[in-house]
Amino acid sequence: MNTAIILLSCPDKPGLIAELTNFITYNNGNIVYLDQYVDHTEEVFFMRMEWSLDKFLIAPEKIEEYFETLYAQKHQMQFKIYFTDRKPRMAIFVSKMSHCLYDMLARYTSGEWAVDIPLIVSNHEDLRPAAERFGIPYHVFPINKENKAELEPQELKILKDNNIDFIVLARYMQIISEDMIKAYPNKIINIHHSFLPAFVGAKPYHAAYARGVKLIGATSHYVTADLDAGPIIEQDVTRITHKDTVEDLVTKGKDLEKIVLSHAVQKQIEHKILAFKNKTIIFN
Amino acid sequence: MNTAIILLSCPDKPGLIAELTNFITYNNGNIVYLDQYVDHTEEVFFMRMEWSLDKFLIAPEKIEEYFETLYAQKHQMQFKIYFTDRKPRMAIFVSKMSHCLYDMLARYTSGEWAVDIPLIVSNHEDLRPAAERFGIPYHVFPINKENKAELEPQELKILKDNNIDFIVLARYMQIISEDMIKAYPNKIINIHHSFLPAFVGAKPYHAAYARGVKLIGATSHYVTADLDAGPIIEQDVTRITHKDTVEDLVTKGKDLEKIVLSHAVQKQIEHKILAFKNKTIIFN
Amino acid sequence: MNTAIILLSCPDKPGLIAELTNFITYNNGNIVYLDQYVDHTEEVFFMRMEWSLDKFLIAPEKIEEYFETLYAQKHQMQFKIYFTDRKPRMAIFVSKMSHCLYDMLARYTSGEWAVDIPLIVSNHEDLRPAAERFGIPYHVFPINKENKAELEPQELKILKDNNIDFIVLARYMQIISEDMIKAYPNKIINIHHSFLPAFVGAKPYHAAYARGVKLIGATSHYVTADLDAGPIIEQDVTRITHKDTVEDLVTKGKDLEKIVLSHAVQKQIEHKILAFKNKTIIFN
Amino acid sequence: MNTAIILLSCPDKPGLIAELTNFITYNNGNIVYLDQYVDHTEEVFFMRMEWSLDKFLIAPEKIEEYFETLYAQKHQMQFKIYFTDRKPRMAIFVSKMSHCLYDMLARYTSGEWAVDIPLIVSNHEDLRPAAERFGIPYHVFPINKENKAELEPQELKILKDNNIDFIVLARYMQIISEDMIKAYPNKIINIHHSFLPAFVGAKPYHAAYARGVKLIGATSHYVTADLDAGPIIEQDVTRITHKDTVEDLVTKGKDLEKIVLSHAVQKQIEHKILAFKNKTIIFN
Repeated sequence: MNTAIILLSCPDKPGLIAELTNFITYNNGNIVYLDQYVDHTEEVFFMRMEWSLDKFLIAPEKIEEYFETLYAQKHQMQFKIYFTDRKPRMAIFVSKMSHCLYDMLARYTSGEWAVDIPLIVSNHEDLRPAAERFGIPYHVFPINKENKAELEPQELKILKDNNIDFIVLARYMQIISEDMIKAYPNKIINIHHSFLPAFVGAKPYHAAYARGVKLIGATSHYVTADLDAGPIIEQDVTRITHKDTVEDLVTKGKDLEKIVLSHAVQKQIEHKILAFKNKTIIFN
Repeated sequence: MNTAIILLSCPDKPGLIAELTNFITYNNGNIVYLDQYVDHTEEVFFMRMEWSLDKFLIAPEKIEEYFETLYAQKHQMQFKIYFTDRKPRMAIFVSKMSHCLYDMLARYTSGEWAVDIPLIVSNHEDLRPAAERFGIPYHVFPINKENKAELEPQELKILKDNNIDFIVLARYMQIISEDMIKAYPNKIINIHHSFLPAFVGAKPYHAAYARGVKLIGATSHYVTADLDAGPIIEQDVTRITHKDTVEDLVTKGKDLEKIVLSHAVQKQIEHKILAFKNKTIIFN
Repeated sequence: MNTAIILLSCPDKPGLIAELTNFITYNNGNIVYLDQYVDHTEEVFFMRMEWSLDKFLIAPEKIEEYFETLYAQKHQMQFKIYFTDRKPRMAIFVSKMSHCLYDMLARYTSGEWAVDIPLIVSNHEDLRPAAERFGIPYHVFPINKENKAELEPQELKILKDNNIDFIVLARYMQIISEDMIKAYPNKIINIHHSFLPAFVGAKPYHAAYARGVKLIGATSHYVTADLDAGPIIEQDVTRITHKDTVEDLVTKGKDLEKIVLSHAVQKQIEHKILAFKNKTIIFN
Repeated sequence: MNTAIILLSCPDKPGLIAELTNFITYNNGNIVYLDQYVDHTEEVFFMRMEWSLDKFLIAPEKIEEYFETLYAQKHQMQFKIYFTDRKPRMAIFVSKMSHCLYDMLARYTSGEWAVDIPLIVSNHEDLRPAAERFGIPYHVFPINKENKAELEPQELKILKDNNIDFIVLARYMQIISEDMIKAYPNKIINIHHSFLPAFVGAKPYHAAYARGVKLIGATSHYVTADLDAGPIIEQDVTRITHKDTVEDLVTKGKDLEKIVLSHAVQKQIEHKILAFKNKTIIFN
């Protein structure tokens, strides 16, 4: 079934739901998903709606224009429209650890995800065999602090050439520059191997071990200019005991990281995340 | 803030949300909560809506009639309307174990729950001191298989005399008769000390120990004529190991039971449960 | 069954387990529990052993002396011996919130815990009715920053007069002074309403809301001179969504807090916690 | 470090730990792991011990004989000795679903698991590309009820030819015959896509949906002659809501299944599982 999805937000006022659902219904669209949420502190209305395009009277390429004209300008709305017959295109950035990469490639290859992965980017050669196993082009940019200003534009070019919609940092061990973040605002998903905001920065498992916590966590979030401080998409934890060494934490953490990251990516693919200020609304 | 809450279900059709939200908005009601769900297998529409009565044009005592006339008959709707200035009245049934009872009385006494608890019913004297600590009348009916037909009508009478809306079985160790179930359809909440449908019936912790499971659970559900088979409201589990004895399971299980039961009761008090066929829709 | 429990730590070396278990076995003690753990980073050996005193050849009041003479000085051991026929004595400190207090009093009253609670201390009158419901003396010391130096010695005196073994801060909203911490080293258990080390200090639920986390947590720990930085005993989390307000976090958090705190207290009562440096070994 | 691991059980009696640890210590072995457990209901002692072979006085190939002579016959012990310089050899059986297979192959390829995987067996061609991606021989036996008696001996032969130690059924959709179970007693690990003992048999997600549970689970267990009734190794659950369709349960369940299965396999590889009667002792 070919459907359209709209994600929108605007100042809250009475009658919005009626008005917006009427837009679909009056034009012969069949709503297959609707969820809305009002942030009563910020007085903002959020909505995700999905409808069948089979008998919809407005041509897909015209929907955005009509919606802008009829509703968005009137209600100071911000919105994005997606079509399920157009798969999003995702780039994966990796360094040396393979667990998150394999988890995503397995989902992709088995058809679990409606996504295209035209390329993998890395600062190391290590995971080229993994990429080749799944037939995905692997591009190495040996980025470090010194050459970042020179190499990142080349990365950006290859991303643009491949029409990349969003980027997944799958334990990519380089800090992304502000230029790239600006090019992909709330479009770069990172996995941090701690329960944020605990243990920001490097070596969180060592820090967790030193602090003697009884649970370790993982956090997927959008990358912003502030390190590990962007809008959180998904988090989870697992229990540890005094018997676990740092190496045990790393091993247990890998399973957390890959599941938490893949769940966030799945939400992204399904257009179920709305970032607002420094938070996310996650539709289900 | 004085509000009304409607819980409704009807066959799904386009335009329902618009029509129902318009009813509130056009009559000067301010919607403070809205959630809806479509079961696409059964083609049934479910909704929970809450709105402020401050400027609402229809008098509270007339809302049901107007809604029935204008919408319910037209759409074959089933609905219930609640008012937040009218606290629901709840009876607690207990036998000998106190953990669920104390958990609920603590919430009630501290003002966490907007509920009245006019009475506690038991088949034993054991928990009278607990009831007296919190100043709640405690009625003993020494029910067993032989005298159940004789004593249950007396229980029903005292429930009716106290205008009881719903009943909570807080580890009450007697099977409820069909007459009482019919008098309180989907209004009797039980806590079963297993992860249903595993370990139906008596001594589930012994059965869990014998089977060697690695997690134990608790399940709150509405009581129906089929033992431990009514609509499930809430479930949770906790991890155990081979080191746990049956007594350990009982101890660990108590914490599960009381939290799972109290969460179900809270949803009931807040009118957030819609039972449909043998399942529940839980609004949040 | 009357048993003795030893908790010990010492530099690791071969043969310790054999030597220590032989001490019990050769003297006609029957070991009913044994667990040990070696921290291979610190090269420290930890052990908890429980044995029946029925036929044990050494009189209970002599065990400590014999153990010190025969093993402790030889192996630079630190150890504590407890007897299950002597219930530990616990004081509870509260301010205004009752959920943790009620949870503990319910366990105490129902016989779930082998502990004595001779008194409750508070800086407010609010929870006197709760204490009176369970017949426990309630002492108010209206402590604030100004009078702390004057009033805490009075608190310490009443604790000493009552032979208090350990203190539980059940959402007690005053910082404990260093003098009291020194009087009860690793004997004061606090519940902090966040997943430490995230959201140290005041108003963690507000901070969690502002950060947009997807899980909230609670942490029980021993109180040290560093705020919220003492050895962690137990932690747990629960899932939240963008729909949860700060008030929702407070409500959901209460259930976490009381269960996490009570589980820590239970471990304390059962002599299953060994604090070492800034961590805990939790025997099960 | 080259170590030996012993897993043993015997009737409980005083002095066992001392005697067994002395055996290692007196012969210049350095114990790096020790855990024991007494089932006080069955009066059975269980132990897992690991020690360095570097200076151990008994040659590896003689340890079993010495242990049998000196301890096992005396204490009616059952025991198995493993050496960490000899990787266990594992066969994977699959049908059409790839998620568990990929999860294991990723761990294997990245060096997370100290195991050899000489072959994959299937009743279908579907997953041959997955096997080939990781360079593992893929053998198809198109087994069904009719030809099972004929084809299973061929499977057994290839397993024996490859010196397979244990078998993992990674969503393999055929029932294993008693002959194969007898050839690999407590050496065949299955993943069942429910929280056993709930929803035994076919289509557990459909059954879970029909029952309206609020959590779904996955269970890894040893295969015995009774369907889905063998000793449980690991279980986990994840939360669902009324909004989840059967397809959603299948999707959410896949992540549970692969993690639960891989954790069980990891315990098997590390020789940390002791099956006793119909349960498992899981060392950590």
